[in-house]
Amino acid sequence: MTEQKNFTLAVVPGDGIGPEVIAEALKVLDAVSAVHGVTFDRTEYDLGAKRWHATGETLPDAELEEIRKHDAILLGAVGDPTVPSGVLERGLLLKLRFTLDHYVNLRPSKIYPSVGSPLANPGEVDFVVVREGTEGPYTGNGGALRVGTPAEIATEVSVNTAYGVERVVRDAFARAQARPRKKLTLVHKNNVLVHAGHLWKRTVDAVAAEFPDITVDYLHVDAATIFLVTDPARFDVIVTDNLFGDIITDLAAAISGGIGLAASANINPDRTAPSMFEPVHGSAPDIAGQQKADPTAAILSAALLLDHLGLTEAAAAIEAAVTADIEERTGAVRTTAEIGDAIAKRAAG
Amino acid sequence: MTEQKNFTLAVVPGDGIGPEVIAEALKVLDAVSAVHGVTFDRTEYDLGAKRWHATGETLPDAELEEIRKHDAILLGAVGDPTVPSGVLERGLLLKLRFTLDHYVNLRPSKIYPSVGSPLANPGEVDFVVVREGTEGPYTGNGGALRVGTPAEIATEVSVNTAYGVERVVRDAFARAQARPRKKLTLVHKNNVLVHAGHLWKRTVDAVAAEFPDITVDYLHVDAATIFLVTDPARFDVIVTDNLFGDIITDLAAAISGGIGLAASANINPDRTAPSMFEPVHGSAPDIAGQQKADPTAAILSAALLLDHLGLTEAAAAIEAAVTADIEERTGAVRTTAEIGDAIAKRAAG
Ligand SMILES: CC(C)[C@H](C(=O)O)[C@@H](O)C(=O)O
Ligand SMILES: CC(C)[C@H](C(=O)O)[C@@H](O)C(=O)O
Repeated sequence: MTEQKNFTLAVVPGDGIGPEVIAEALKVLDAVSAVHGVTFDRTEYDLGAKRWHATGETLPDAELEEIRKHDAILLGAVGDPTVPSGVLERGLLLKLRFTLDHYVNLRPSKIYPSVGSPLANPGEVDFVVVREGTEGPYTGNGGALRVGTPAEIATEVSVNTAYGVERVVRDAFARAQARPRKKLTLVHKNNVLVHAGHLWKRTVDAVAAEFPDITVDYLHVDAATIFLVTDPARFDVIVTDNLFGDIITDLAAAISGGIGLAASANINPDRTAPSMFEPVHGSAPDIAGQQKADPTAAILSAALLLDHLGLTEAAAAIEAAVTADIEERTGAVRTTAEIGDAIAKRAAG
Repeated sequence: MTEQKNFTLAVVPGDGIGPEVIAEALKVLDAVSAVHGVTFDRTEYDLGAKRWHATGETLPDAELEEIRKHDAILLGAVGDPTVPSGVLERGLLLKLRFTLDHYVNLRPSKIYPSVGSPLANPGEVDFVVVREGTEGPYTGNGGALRVGTPAEIATEVSVNTAYGVERVVRDAFARAQARPRKKLTLVHKNNVLVHAGHLWKRTVDAVAAEFPDITVDYLHVDAATIFLVTDPARFDVIVTDNLFGDIITDLAAAISGGIGLAASANINPDRTAPSMFEPVHGSAPDIAGQQKADPTAAILSAALLLDHLGLTEAAAAIEAAVTADIEERTGAVRTTAEIGDAIAKRAAG
C-alpha cells in the first residue's frame, strides 16, 4: 500500500468519443477518491485532431515533458478521419507509449454472464494479455522509396531485442504466478517470422526455468485466433508482441462483452515515467458527441490506474460498481452520462 | 472452357495429417475425373519432416524445377514438432509459394447452416479473402545479431512493392466484380504501419476508380477481427497482406464451420508456373495417422484446383457433393477415409 494521498493526473481526452468517455471516467474517479481520501490534481492536455488542424502539432516535446511530471495519465482515444491516417496515432499515442517506456500493455478480458458474448458457448473467460508496447512492428522503422510511382517500395521493420523481450516476458510470468491457474501462453508466428519468433520463444523458455510452477504453452497467432472463438476459457496469461497483441486484444474484447468494456493499462513497471490508462476502443467518430458511447471501458481503465498507484481498495470499488451495473443491464438505452452517473453512485456508495 | 483433357499433377502430401487428407482428395479427384473424361497423371514428391530428417533437404532446386513442369500442385500440410520451427515452413511451403509466384492466396469462407458456428448468430456468411502471397512480412528479410546474448536484436522486414500490391488488388477487384454483392474491403493497419499501409490504401483507391460499381471499404486488421465475430455477413471480398491474411483466414475458418472445411488456392494468375491447392489447416501432428482428420478442406481444395484448370463442371460436382455430405452430418464420428468415400461416391454419382 502506498502512503501517498495526493496525486497528479494528466488527462488527454483526445478525439471522437474520447472526451465523452473520459468525462465519465473522471466522474467515477472523483466519486471514489472522495470516499477513499485521495485527491487527483488534474491537468488537461488539448491534443488530437483539433489541435493538429489549428497548429500542425501532435505532441510537442515540451508538452510531453510536462505530462511526464504527473503520477499517471488518463487517455480517451486518438484518431480522426480528417487527419491523415497515422499522424495522430504515431505522433501522439505511440509517441507517449514509446517515450514513456510503456513496455507492458495490459489488457484483461472477462465475460460477464449478463452481458453475453457473440459466441454461443464461451465458457468462463478470464484472461489477461500482456502486449509488448515499445518494440515489434510498431517502432516506425522502415520507409518508402519512389512513392506514388509504379516502382514504389515500402518497408516496415519489426525490431525485437533481448532486452525488450525479456523484460515483458518476466512481467508476464510474474502476473501468471499471481493468478490461480498459473498458465502462460506465448503467441507469435515463429514458423515464419523465425528471427523475432525464435528470440521470443527462447526467452520464454529461459525465463520459464525460473518459474517451475507455471504451465507454458505456445500458439501461432493464427491458431490463437481460432482458440479465442472456440475455447477462450483455455487462456490465463498471454504474452505477445506489439502487433499480435493489438489484433488479439480487439478479438478478445469482441468475444467478451464488446469493445465498450475493454480497458487497458500502458505500464512502465520500472516507474521511471508515468503509466497511461486508456480504453481499448478507438475514437469512433461516427457516434462522437452523441452520448452513445459506453464509458465503461474508460471507467475500468481508471480502476487499473488506481490499482497501479497502490489504491487497491478504490480500484476494487470501481470494479465492483461496474460489475453490479453490468449485471443489471436490461438492454434499455442509456446515455454515456447516465452510465457514468450510475457507476459513480455505486462506486461511492 | 479448356480443351485439355489430360493433366499432370504434382502431389506433396507433407507432414502429419497431410498424407491422410490428400489420399481422400485424390480419391474424390479420381472419381470426378472418370465421370468428366479427364485424367491426372500424378507424381508424388516425398517432401517434409521425414525427408529432412533423412537427408537434411527441404526442397532442392532441381526438384522444384520438376514440380514446376506440372499443370497444378496439390499439397497436404507442412510442419512437424521434431523439426525446428520455420525450417519446413520457410524451406518448403513458402519456397513453393514464392518461387512459383503464387501472389493470390485465395481463401473462401462460407457457413453451412447444418455445420453451425461457434457464433450464436453468424448470419449468412459467404466471403472470400484474397491474401497476398509473395510479399509482406513473409519475405524472410531481416535477421538477427548477437543471437543468444543479452544484446540480441532480431528484425523482420515487411517488403511491399507497388508492383506486388497492384497485381493482387486488381485480382481482388475482378473477383468482387464477378460476385453479386460487388463489395471489397481492404484490411491493413495503415494508422501504424504507415509506409506499407499507405501504399496499399493508395493502390486500392487508384484501382477503385476503374471499378465504379464496386463498393470499397477499409478496416484496420484489429477492427476486422471484431467484425468477423460480430457481423461476418458484412464481408464479400477482402484483400489484405500476407500476414494479416494468414491471421484473419484462420479466424474466418473458425467462425464458419471450422478449420476442417477451409480450402485454399495459391494462384499464379499469369500462369507462368503451376498454382498450388492446399487446406488452410496445419499438419496437426497430435491426431496424425489416426484417421481422425476431416479431409473436407483438402477435398474442397481439389475443387478449387479443377476450377482453376477450367474444369468447372467437375469442380461444381465436388462442391455439390461436399455440401450434400455436410448437410447430412449427424455428429456421428466417421474416419477420414469414410468421409472421403462418401464424398467420392456422391461426386461421381
Ligand atoms: C490507435 C492505434 C494506434 C492503437 C494500436 O494499434 O495500438 C489501438 O488500436 C490500440 O490497440 O490501442
Ligand atoms: C504453415 C504456415 C507457414 C502457413 C502460413 O503462415 O502461411 C499456414 O499458417 C497457412 O496459413 O497456410
